Amino acid sequence: MKISELGEFGFIDAIKEDTLFNPDPVVIGIGDDGAVYKTSEGMEQVAVIDTMVENSHFIIHRTGDWYDVGYKAVASNLSDIAAMGGIPTHIVLSTAIAPDMEVEGLISLYDGIKDICRTYHVNILGGDTVTSKEGMVITVAAFGEIEAGKAIRRSGARPGDIVAVSHTIGNSSGGLAALLQNHDGYPQLKRAHRFPVPQVELGRLLVKYNCHSLNDISDGLASESNEIAKASGVRLVLKKDAIPVSDELTSWAAESKTSVWNYVFNGGEDYELIFTMEPADFHSLQSEYSDVTKIGVVRSGNGDVLLVDGDTESILAPTGWTHF
Amino acid sequence: MKISELGEFGFIDAIKEDTLFNPDPVVIGIGDDGAVYKTSEGMEQVAVIDTMVENSHFIIHRTGDWYDVGYKAVASNLSDIAAMGGIPTHIVLSTAIAPDMEVEGLISLYDGIKDICRTYHVNILGGDTVTSKEGMVITVAAFGEIEAGKAIRRSGARPGDIVAVSHTIGNSSGGLAALLQNHDGYPQLKRAHRFPVPQVELGRLLVKYNCHSLNDISDGLASESNEIAKASGVRLVLKKDAIPVSDELTSWAAESKTSVWNYVFNGGEDYELIFTMEPADFHSLQSEYSDVTKIGVVRSGNGDVLLVDGDTESILAPTGWTHF
Repeated sequence: MKISELGEFGFIDAIKEDTLFNPDPVVIGIGDDGAVYKTSEGMEQVAVIDTMVENSHFIIHRTGDWYDVGYKAVASNLSDIAAMGGIPTHIVLSTAIAPDMEVEGLISLYDGIKDICRTYHVNILGGDTVTSKEGMVITVAAFGEIEAGKAIRRSGARPGDIVAVSHTIGNSSGGLAALLQNHDGYPQLKRAHRFPVPQVELGRLLVKYNCHSLNDISDGLASESNEIAKASGVRLVLKKDAIPVSDELTSWAAESKTSVWNYVFNGGEDYELIFTMEPADFHSLQSEYSDVTKIGVVRSGNGDVLLVDGDTESILAPTGWTHF
Repeated sequence: MKISELGEFGFIDAIKEDTLFNPDPVVIGIGDDGAVYKTSEGMEQVAVIDTMVENSHFIIHRTGDWYDVGYKAVASNLSDIAAMGGIPTHIVLSTAIAPDMEVEGLISLYDGIKDICRTYHVNILGGDTVTSKEGMVITVAAFGEIEAGKAIRRSGARPGDIVAVSHTIGNSSGGLAALLQNHDGYPQLKRAHRFPVPQVELGRLLVKYNCHSLNDISDGLASESNEIAKASGVRLVLKKDAIPVSDELTSWAAESKTSVWNYVFNGGEDYELIFTMEPADFHSLQSEYSDVTKIGVVRSGNGDVLLVDGDTESILAPTGWTHF
């Protein structure tokens, strides 16, 4: 069945169940002009918004299925909340849908949305659905909360801090390349692209261990490290061979005759975290969360990133994904 | 200059100033992964989201200019908050932009956004900008707050209530028709379409005077009255000749040989309010806000709307604007 046959209200009826995965703070959910919810005493609110456009951010059945689109539209927002150190609580979302879209695809999209919301105990509070002439545009706005005064900015890096990242970098864009070439292998890279994991748990530990500055890696390590350097008015010195890269990415780069470092520095959508903190705090963090790697240090400076590669030092330009 | 020449960061630099019109609750505004803000003690939060698609919701330089699009994208959201009785406080927004859009148009869009936010003391907390291949898609998510337990639902209408609306109904779709026909006249109708006024002040008075049920009229009076009837499990009895209609709409309908009632019942985007309350409370409301009109009463029933037209009674179907 096409969406145009189901109709707007039929569609809302089809997806409005099973949307509250932490009902306590919700006063009014889907079905009125607006949703109403309670906030927690002593907490400040975090708000983020992110949009994905068909054939720009994803190509259906090529870079992923509808389920993945829904999952990822939420994941990118939860990642932004994690990058402030926050706890995600609610989303509202808007979908612009082509009238000839199959209802099955739309249900699958919402299954992806609901599954990641269930995992993170995030409520779906409401939405808007409109007609698009030219494929899907999905926008998710997510809210979260954080202890008053504890949000971690980009601008807090201090000379003497170490610079670290979570897990391995570059997998998502490596997976995208493998998907676009219809390659059979590289399941870890493809999974990283289709189902990125917002680092909410680590973000919370970074609050606990007094992290000074924090970004999620949505536009490549070059762009994100430069953002911290610029916002903090410091120099980040990164050691190239310390940057953690997965075996699959190394294999993919070799097989496809591409550069690992292009994925690492200029790839997008890893949704890992880059952060700076005092060395002793990093040591404490590692005792509780081992999958973080020191990749450099913060020195006084004027907002740039120095990349050390053996005997060679160069300024790392803030290239990476920009949207125009 | 085209947007593609300005670049994403140039664009953010161009619009990030002048975004906080009530800075007190804002901890972190535009420029980090997420915005952080404080909520007020004793208040619950209201969240809404709304999308406008080029050539579906607006046709540039025909139904309005870029300024209007920005203004209206916010207005529709503030109207949803007004329809809960809330005070709007913040927005986040996302724009999907064609790369060949002129920067001048985008600046104008943001001027419209900023001007309505300034009027209502609403902060612009952040946004996302992505590329659209096919014209603009703008999504605004707005937040507001309301005294705990005071949000006004659709479902509260009680037998014995009066039914009332604000101002006059049908102007916006009358104005749209005049705009599409390039008619010179009808400034009030066109203004209603281009710059609808979210009824925030009236919404607050409806909280004060114990309003039982409330909707904003975004999809026509037929649809909105039926929503209240259905959600409340009552019958709304509306008197057709009591429904307030502007002189301009009457003139336009006569000149264009169209029906006033098609604009009133099936037109969209009036953003006036329809509400039910006890007659004595309505009397008190009128002493403070005179531009409200009783158009009917609530009787016990099963979720329908009876329209009384002289000697004729008929069931008013929930037609109106649906999006598929």
